[in-house]
Amino acid sequence: MASAEATAANAQAEAVTALLAVPARPVRPVLNFPPELLLQAQDVRAAVFDVDGCLTDGRITIGAQGEQVKAFSTLDGHGIKLLARGGVTPVVITGRDSPAVRRRCTDLGVTQALFGVHDKLQAGAQLLVALGLGWHQLAVIGDDWPDLPLLARCALACAPAQAHAEVRAVCHHVTATPGGHGAAREFCDLLLVARGVYASLLAGHLTTLDGTPAA
Amino acid sequence: MASAEATAANAQAEAVTALLAVPARPVRPVLNFPPELLLQAQDVRAAVFDVDGCLTDGRITIGAQGEQVKAFSTLDGHGIKLLARGGVTPVVITGRDSPAVRRRCTDLGVTQALFGVHDKLQAGAQLLVALGLGWHQLAVIGDDWPDLPLLARCALACAPAQAHAEVRAVCHHVTATPGGHGAAREFCDLLLVARGVYASLLAGHLTTLDGTPAA
Amino acid sequence: MASAEATAANAQAEAVTALLAVPARPVRPVLNFPPELLLQAQDVRAAVFDVDGCLTDGRITIGAQGEQVKAFSTLDGHGIKLLARGGVTPVVITGRDSPAVRRRCTDLGVTQALFGVHDKLQAGAQLLVALGLGWHQLAVIGDDWPDLPLLARCALACAPAQAHAEVRAVCHHVTATPGGHGAAREFCDLLLVARGVYASLLAGHLTTLDGTPAA
Amino acid sequence: MASAEATAANAQAEAVTALLAVPARPVRPVLNFPPELLLQAQDVRAAVFDVDGCLTDGRITIGAQGEQVKAFSTLDGHGIKLLARGGVTPVVITGRDSPAVRRRCTDLGVTQALFGVHDKLQAGAQLLVALGLGWHQLAVIGDDWPDLPLLARCALACAPAQAHAEVRAVCHHVTATPGGHGAAREFCDLLLVARGVYASLLAGHLTTLDGTPAA
Repeated sequence: MASAEATAANAQAEAVTALLAVPARPVRPVLNFPPELLLQAQDVRAAVFDVDGCLTDGRITIGAQGEQVKAFSTLDGHGIKLLARGGVTPVVITGRDSPAVRRRCTDLGVTQALFGVHDKLQAGAQLLVALGLGWHQLAVIGDDWPDLPLLARCALACAPAQAHAEVRAVCHHVTATPGGHGAAREFCDLLLVARGVYASLLAGHLTTLDGTPAA
Repeated sequence: MASAEATAANAQAEAVTALLAVPARPVRPVLNFPPELLLQAQDVRAAVFDVDGCLTDGRITIGAQGEQVKAFSTLDGHGIKLLARGGVTPVVITGRDSPAVRRRCTDLGVTQALFGVHDKLQAGAQLLVALGLGWHQLAVIGDDWPDLPLLARCALACAPAQAHAEVRAVCHHVTATPGGHGAAREFCDLLLVARGVYASLLAGHLTTLDGTPAA
Repeated sequence: MASAEATAANAQAEAVTALLAVPARPVRPVLNFPPELLLQAQDVRAAVFDVDGCLTDGRITIGAQGEQVKAFSTLDGHGIKLLARGGVTPVVITGRDSPAVRRRCTDLGVTQALFGVHDKLQAGAQLLVALGLGWHQLAVIGDDWPDLPLLARCALACAPAQAHAEVRAVCHHVTATPGGHGAAREFCDLLLVARGVYASLLAGHLTTLDGTPAA
Repeated sequence: MASAEATAANAQAEAVTALLAVPARPVRPVLNFPPELLLQAQDVRAAVFDVDGCLTDGRITIGAQGEQVKAFSTLDGHGIKLLARGGVTPVVITGRDSPAVRRRCTDLGVTQALFGVHDKLQAGAQLLVALGLGWHQLAVIGDDWPDLPLLARCALACAPAQAHAEVRAVCHHVTATPGGHGAAREFCDLLLVARGVYASLLAGHLTTLDGTPAA
């Protein structure tokens, strides 16, 4: 009996192995960006993410007990993880503070995070010094006037689609999607393409986690 | 007195019956899909649904106690029920886990569901073996890179409108609506049309539940 | 001292009266609908509202304790109140049930409401008999297949913008806005224009509640 | 040892100072409005904000315990603060009442706020008298019929993109964005440009809070 079970289990394992051996259809990167934008982003080693309006859609959801929830995007979350793997340190600098944002940072492994920041220029300069970087190695995504001091000094300034008109005007790139719906992912994609690591990160996603080749 | 009441009740029942006898205006299916897409989907017997970004709009709503709610679509819910009735097994494979997703699966009668899956290729292969199916009998809807291993191997790959560019590029079909707003329903509709059961399922909706003919 | 206060209060009251006496800029109705649509709606005395996808955007927000909230539209709420004032009985018929929907109905003064309805055709016929009306006096707004039996029999069938393709195909009117964002208000507006009461209801809104003429 | 630490701290402080000394790229205002609209708004000293549909997207989120949350926009919040700094008193007049709205007003420093107002014309007239202003000094943003009495009398009437057709028809300006997603910010921007204070408020955002010049 036990051997019959073992045989069945073996047959199943073999069937799984056979299915894993089927090659994937080829996946070739389709994303691209204007060359001058990629040049601008080439030296970037740290990326600052504003929270409200960039990692969220800018809505402040308030109940009887104050701010209750924030809604983040899974697309953005995966992008931030890829960014770190690609050698760009993700940083969160936000004027507000909430348990929701702190928890999201923890979930995404973002260890560089400044909450309740009143003066983003000062915070950004201190961060650069701590990381041993200069303005030319910093990219920033921001949506409103308090982000302007950083956006107007960094190497690559990015605005989500719904950002204030003055912010969009000052940025090198405006994403196709609004904050909280993939804007931060587009920002990550751009930085990863500029660093030349995008294609290999993508190819890695066709392999199983234990290394079975995809094709 | 009692007989007067009975007479009134009878009259009401007759009036209801008369209203039910009124024929419905004819309803003829208007949906259609390109023939090559229908061919591709013809052998499909199981359909994998990614959750975040497919059954939801990809937003992770976080409060002080962590993820709090997920928002699903009634259009999608009805589609998944129709799919099962049409002979295609709905399957949920998701990288995250939450009480909300488990409860939604229960409500929709989805018994094949894998939560907290890190390696979707491995999970998909095991699922196929358990169901006695091959890649050519599987359809998948997914929106981000972790879905690529399944999307690049199944018979019919589908992406919601807001999916990542690389996912859309690898899929056979991109829905008109984004995840959480009807994308999964479009995916179900496509599979039901391909199986040739869509029109009869639709016609069944003009009949009352106890079988009164619609026209 | 008391008389000084009284004088000040008098002066204030006079100033308010003077401001109220300033005529409003003229407000003339701008909405209009195709004549054949208005003809179709002319005899309507009751209007059935589906909930999910019509009074809401169709999202089912689920947490650990099941369905938690529903989001309705203030535009729709005001429309339903106007409809009742205009002589059309608003009715809610929904396949689901939740404290949220019941509370919303109470807030809007909707007394004709059926929750957890499995067979909408049966429910609709019984409702018509209870109200002493026929199919030609009923308008319905619905977004999915379970609404088809009513939509295919009533005098005026309306679908929100995001409704399923088959529902849109069978309806006389598809609203410009999706459910939960004003679709039901458009439906109310159409019925009020058809009854010829829209302009006077609008004019009434330029007068203060205690009757001060607007111009 | 202590002196080594002090030296390091000094070096860091100098590095921060050097980074702060880097000039910002020039930021020149890009927003503009039609001259006749700016003329209309020139004397405005108070601005009335309707809540549902103007400061929110008009959704009433209801759970078992009644209305639970309201979602406001960070863009709008910053605009209302700028408006007050620019010499225009922000006022909230709303037909509903909820802890969420009261809390949002407090957070934004809005001290002129009337909740649960049934007759907005009366409330508006009393407010003007209290502030010592006339209709020609009032701007109003509103989205539905109850706002018409104020919109049809004030100097500058503004509607969010999704406002009812009759409201849009009576307003001088319809914003590009809907309520709860930046409509109120556009309204603030218009009033600040009309008062001639927009450019200097914008320029002030390139300086650090303690006055380090931006360029």
